[in-house]
Amino acid sequence: MGPGPSEIHPRALQALAQPAIGHLDPAFVDLMDEVKDLLRYVFQTENRLTFPVSGPGSAAMETCFTNMVEAGDKVVIARNGVFGGRMTEMATRLSADVVTIDDEWGQPVDPQKLEAALESNPDTKIVGFVHAETSTGALSDASKLAEIAQRFGCLTIVDTVTSLTGSPLYVDDWGLDAVYSGAQKCLSSVAGIAPLTISDRAVEKINQRQTPVSTWFHDIGLIDGYWSESSSRSYHHTAPVNSIFALAESLRLVKQEGLERSWERHRKISQTLLTGLSQLNLEMMVEDASIRLPQLSVVKVPEGIDEAMVRARLLQEYDIEIGPGLGPLAGQVWRIGLMGYSCRSENVERLLGVLKEVLSDLPEVSSSSG
Amino acid sequence: MGPGPSEIHPRALQALAQPAIGHLDPAFVDLMDEVKDLLRYVFQTENRLTFPVSGPGSAAMETCFTNMVEAGDKVVIARNGVFGGRMTEMATRLSADVVTIDDEWGQPVDPQKLEAALESNPDTKIVGFVHAETSTGALSDASKLAEIAQRFGCLTIVDTVTSLTGSPLYVDDWGLDAVYSGAQKCLSSVAGIAPLTISDRAVEKINQRQTPVSTWFHDIGLIDGYWSESSSRSYHHTAPVNSIFALAESLRLVKQEGLERSWERHRKISQTLLTGLSQLNLEMMVEDASIRLPQLSVVKVPEGIDEAMVRARLLQEYDIEIGPGLGPLAGQVWRIGLMGYSCRSENVERLLGVLKEVLSDLPEVSSSSG
Repeated sequence: MGPGPSEIHPRALQALAQPAIGHLDPAFVDLMDEVKDLLRYVFQTENRLTFPVSGPGSAAMETCFTNMVEAGDKVVIARNGVFGGRMTEMATRLSADVVTIDDEWGQPVDPQKLEAALESNPDTKIVGFVHAETSTGALSDASKLAEIAQRFGCLTIVDTVTSLTGSPLYVDDWGLDAVYSGAQKCLSSVAGIAPLTISDRAVEKINQRQTPVSTWFHDIGLIDGYWSESSSRSYHHTAPVNSIFALAESLRLVKQEGLERSWERHRKISQTLLTGLSQLNLEMMVEDASIRLPQLSVVKVPEGIDEAMVRARLLQEYDIEIGPGLGPLAGQVWRIGLMGYSCRSENVERLLGVLKEVLSDLPEVSSSSG
Repeated sequence: MGPGPSEIHPRALQALAQPAIGHLDPAFVDLMDEVKDLLRYVFQTENRLTFPVSGPGSAAMETCFTNMVEAGDKVVIARNGVFGGRMTEMATRLSADVVTIDDEWGQPVDPQKLEAALESNPDTKIVGFVHAETSTGALSDASKLAEIAQRFGCLTIVDTVTSLTGSPLYVDDWGLDAVYSGAQKCLSSVAGIAPLTISDRAVEKINQRQTPVSTWFHDIGLIDGYWSESSSRSYHHTAPVNSIFALAESLRLVKQEGLERSWERHRKISQTLLTGLSQLNLEMMVEDASIRLPQLSVVKVPEGIDEAMVRARLLQEYDIEIGPGLGPLAGQVWRIGLMGYSCRSENVERLLGVLKEVLSDLPEVSSSSG
């Protein structure tokens, strides 16, 4: 029940442990086509270029930046947590001309700040932001931010690692361009493989690059040669065959449940958690319910509580993992995930019971160590 | 029985399908330390910086190049197959000053050519070569090549994707610097995770870079913060937890068997395959036994045989996969892997029997389609 990796669905684990087959085996090639279709469903897109990156979510983030950004491109990045900061770092390393807009951690990205930044920087080519900040539990209005970016003729790079299948996301309707996620969050699949979809507009920008992509491994033109529908599928790298077995099964499970029902389940079950936490006098980092993630509840550590000891006791005595704060929030919050298969009433009931016991049983410590 | 992914060992499959745990869980951190120690054993190295890259072998190749090479660095790459070509591509994209030395496909890298290239290019900083070429089945003398590189003050980047645990490899004794492999070959583990070890000399060169590594994902300084022994292990990306479960189990199996015995098993069983193939009047791509890989036999397709039909019949009728030729060898060779767990007498016997049947049963075709 941490911020991910979440519990892998038993059917995905079973799929994962099938004997490997060749990454160019006709049976595997059929599976690749199925995976692409299922990814289009969960992303709600018709984008041709839709496939899983052979790496963790941050490899998919890197794939977006290395392909979309050229040295000197003006890029506006919204930072309201760890992952907007990571985007800034990637764009900077690519020698982009980076402009950042900052919001407080726990707040969503402010659309007015984006608008103002684009007004002062009319030559901006790319806007990057995080849909659901895994470090703070805040949801930003991706539709509104993309609408503004488009009005200024910009393409968007959007992090949906924690939002995909947990919160409403409509890649095509909202006009998002390069959108990546992870498999180890609300998809309840294995860490190390990362869904990605790229709009035709973004493909056009990539095709018009003046310089080659600096890394061979991330070059989307080459990867596309392996993942494309064409009959002349060509070898790029060895795909992580077993991880793709698991991903396929996880995606089938989402399709079976239906996206809307999945969103509703996350919303409803997280509500039970919130009610229980408030009965324990615990406060949420994100106060406004309309921008609070259902799949990830970030809870303020009460004064005088040794937060690491609480986590250690949950893990050692009860086999329950919850996450610590990242960056400036280290020591100040807990992050409780209800993602995909982990998002079940029995998990909420058990955690609330155990948390009540552990909190009532703790020695008081001086607030300086809290 | 293709060139990889090879058959995953049943115990590794079982480990793979364990429920996930957090990538910062104390139990997982202990496993990371065990994996690093086991990797040091299979690489025969004491290098501190030894860990699995969260991606396929080519992501580990990219990690070596993006960290070791800076724009303008002179790099000599030996090409005697597909993977030396890939190294050239990576170094070129990083704006290195690339000098290539070429040997015929099926031949090992010629040490004299390397010596001559370094004599004419005394400002060379890096030498890249492939130990065991997966596209041709030829083994190069990594010890000799590294000795020459060192004599000219160069660091080496060495591809051991197909050699690791299948052929003798001594990273420290031979003085290799940045050495990467894959898990889906002789380790009989999952595709998508790639062993890597970096010498202290290479770390020094990386630390002295004038410019930051162009990609955040591959920056070894950041990755080291997660994989290092230090008590302040810090989050970089979400490690592929289940793949590391499987890798650990595969490495334990190698340790149990012992490296020398593993090399000997590959040598001995491949000898049975070679004898059988020659009885079927099939010729090997690499004629000289001293440079022929035991774990990967590359066989010339006889005149007038439709090679794709043979592979299709083996796969569809007998569930046996063998690989096609890559690049200029497409249509001209088959690649038969005997890697790790796949390297068993019963597999050799079965393949030889089936191959005999299929070859005697084929319609003759015109040589133009062969």
